[in-house]
Amino acid sequence: MKATLMYGAGDVRVEQVRDSTITEPTDALVRITATCVCGSDLHPYGSMSPDDGPAHMGHEFIGIVEDIGAEVTTLRTGDLVVAPFAFSDGTCQFCRAGLQTSCEQGGFWDGLPGEGGQAEAIRVPLADGTLFPLPVAADSALIPSLLTISDVLGTGYHAAVRGGVRQGSTVTVVGDGAVGLLAVLSAKRLGAEQIILMGRHQARTDLGREFGATDVVSARGDEGVAAVRDLTGGFGTNVVLEAVGHLPAYEQAFGVVRVGGTISRVGVPQYDDAPIGFASLFGGNVTLTGGPAPSRAYMEELLPPILDGSIEPGKVFDATTDLDGVPGGYRDMADRTSLKVLVTP
Amino acid sequence: MKATLMYGAGDVRVEQVRDSTITEPTDALVRITATCVCGSDLHPYGSMSPDDGPAHMGHEFIGIVEDIGAEVTTLRTGDLVVAPFAFSDGTCQFCRAGLQTSCEQGGFWDGLPGEGGQAEAIRVPLADGTLFPLPVAADSALIPSLLTISDVLGTGYHAAVRGGVRQGSTVTVVGDGAVGLLAVLSAKRLGAEQIILMGRHQARTDLGREFGATDVVSARGDEGVAAVRDLTGGFGTNVVLEAVGHLPAYEQAFGVVRVGGTISRVGVPQYDDAPIGFASLFGGNVTLTGGPAPSRAYMEELLPPILDGSIEPGKVFDATTDLDGVPGGYRDMADRTSLKVLVTP
Repeated sequence: MKATLMYGAGDVRVEQVRDSTITEPTDALVRITATCVCGSDLHPYGSMSPDDGPAHMGHEFIGIVEDIGAEVTTLRTGDLVVAPFAFSDGTCQFCRAGLQTSCEQGGFWDGLPGEGGQAEAIRVPLADGTLFPLPVAADSALIPSLLTISDVLGTGYHAAVRGGVRQGSTVTVVGDGAVGLLAVLSAKRLGAEQIILMGRHQARTDLGREFGATDVVSARGDEGVAAVRDLTGGFGTNVVLEAVGHLPAYEQAFGVVRVGGTISRVGVPQYDDAPIGFASLFGGNVTLTGGPAPSRAYMEELLPPILDGSIEPGKVFDATTDLDGVPGGYRDMADRTSLKVLVTP
Repeated sequence: MKATLMYGAGDVRVEQVRDSTITEPTDALVRITATCVCGSDLHPYGSMSPDDGPAHMGHEFIGIVEDIGAEVTTLRTGDLVVAPFAFSDGTCQFCRAGLQTSCEQGGFWDGLPGEGGQAEAIRVPLADGTLFPLPVAADSALIPSLLTISDVLGTGYHAAVRGGVRQGSTVTVVGDGAVGLLAVLSAKRLGAEQIILMGRHQARTDLGREFGATDVVSARGDEGVAAVRDLTGGFGTNVVLEAVGHLPAYEQAFGVVRVGGTISRVGVPQYDDAPIGFASLFGGNVTLTGGPAPSRAYMEELLPPILDGSIEPGKVFDATTDLDGVPGGYRDMADRTSLKVLVTP
C-alpha cells in the first residue's frame, strides 16, 4: 500500500510499504478515505534529523472498517469511522476522566511503528476505545468538517474548554492556523463576547472573522500586545488561547492576559523553560493550562452541530489532493500558501 | 516610634524612626498590637543588597485604629483591625473579583515608603478597603490565630482554593513552613481525602499531621517524588500546593502531580524561567495556577471557624517576642529554630 514517510526536514515521500494488517485482537484495520496534513507535522518538517527517519506520517483520518480483531465488540466491517489523534482504551481512569491522551494503554500515532494516517490503510489499536462511528457516507459533503473532530476542532475546543471560556468571556487567540481559527469558533460557541484573533494572513483572519472573531491584530511582539491592550481598556482578556507552540506566542499570551485570567495552550510547545515568575504569571494570579487535546472526549458533543450545519469547521481546508500530492501539501502549508490540505487517498 | 529596618542580607535593626501619621484623607493610623516575621521576609534576609536598604519590614499586623482620615467611613477610633498583606480600595474591578492583590489603586506594604508592620504604628492607605474589624479584644487568646488571616492562613487557603481542592481530592503540600502547614489545614477544610506533606522538620510535620496531613514525606528531589508516587498508586495527586518559592520545590511539584491535575503556587517564585514544556506540564494536561493571595477576600470566610475554635491556625507561632527581639526572630527563623515568631510591640 502507499504511505507517507518523512526522511528528515523538508523531505516527505509517498512510497509503497508493506500492507497494514491486524496484529492484536483489539485492533481494527481501516481503509482511509480522508486524511490531512497537520500544522504539528510542520514542526518535524522544519527540523527533523535524518537520523530519526523515516517516520510514517499522519494522525487525522476518516475511513472504512475493513477488518476487526476477535475482541472488538462495538465496530463492524463497513462502518465509517473517525479517529482522534491519539488511540486509547476508553476504559482506564484517565479515559473515564476525559483525558484519553493520557490513556494508560494508549499512545500517539507516531509511537506506533510502521503506521500513519497519511496512507491507504492503517492498523488501529484499541479500536473500541479509539474509533468513533460516523452516521454519514464516505462521500458526504460533511466529510471535511467531520475530519476536523479528529484533531484541529477537538484541539481548538479543548483550548477553549480548558481556558474556561464562558458566556461573556473576553478571549485572545494567538495564531491563525487551523487550530487557532477553530479555537475562535469554539470560543464563540461557548459564548465569548469579544474574540481577538492575533494573526497576519488576511485570508485566514477573514475566515477567523467568519468563525466569530470580533477583532484582528496583525502586529506581533510588544506592538501586538499593546494593540490587544488598546482593545481591552488596557487590561487584556480573561482568556488567551495559544495555538502556535513557539516561545514568542507564549510570551504574547502572558502579555495580553488579564489579571486573574487563564492562558490555555494547545500548540505543542517547541520550548521547555519559559518565564513563569512574578512578572509573567505569578504576580497577576494568571493560570496556565492546556495540553494535548483528548479529541475523543469531545466527539459526541461536536458531532451534532456539524451534522445540523450550525458549525462548518471544514472551511479550514483550502486545498485537496490525493496521496501522491502529500509532499506538495507539506510544502504549501510550510510556505503558508495553503492553510490546511485535505487528502483523499 | 520604633520600627524594624533591614539594611541588607542578615542585617535587621530596630530603630527610632519618625512617627507614622495620616497623610491622605483615606488613611488610617493603626497602633500595632500584634505582628510577626514572615517566611517571605527570609528571602531578602538571605540575599538583599545593602544598596536596596534600609527597608521598613513587616506586612502582617493587628492593631487599634488611632486616627482616621476625613474620608474614612467604615472605621472608628478604637476599632481592633487586622490588615491583609496588600492594601486595596475594595471597589475596583479586581477587588470586586476577589483579586485585591491586583487592586488598581493598591499595593504591597513594601511599596509604601517609610511604613512597615514590624513597628509600633503604621499608616494604612485605603483604610476602608484594606482593614478588617475584629470582634475581640486586643488581648484575646485568639489573636495569634486571627493574625494568620493577614497572610499565612489566607495564603495557604488561596493555594487550596485556586488549586481546586474539593471533597475527596488527593493533595501534596510542598513545604513545611507556616504557609505549607496552613495549606494542609485549608486542604483538610475543603474536604481533601489524602494530604501528603513534604517536609523534613519533625516538629513542623507533626503540626502538619495535627492540621490534617495523612502522610509525611521527608525525602526531597527524585527520591521525594518517588515516595509520593508510591503513596498514590504511582499516579501522583490531583493537586499540589507549592508553598516554598524555590525552583526545586516547583520541580518537585510537577514531579508529583497527577495527569490532568493542578499545581497551585503561593511561595513567591525566586526564579523566572522554569520547565513548562511537554515533559513537565503540557503532556499531562497539568494546570499551573496561584499567585499572591488576596487575603482580604478570605477574611469574612475564615473568621467564624477561628472564633468558634474549629480551626487553630495560630499554632504556627512557636515563639513570641517584643519589637527589640525582632532581629533575633529573623535569625531563629532563618536557622529553622523557630517556625514563626509572633511580635507584640
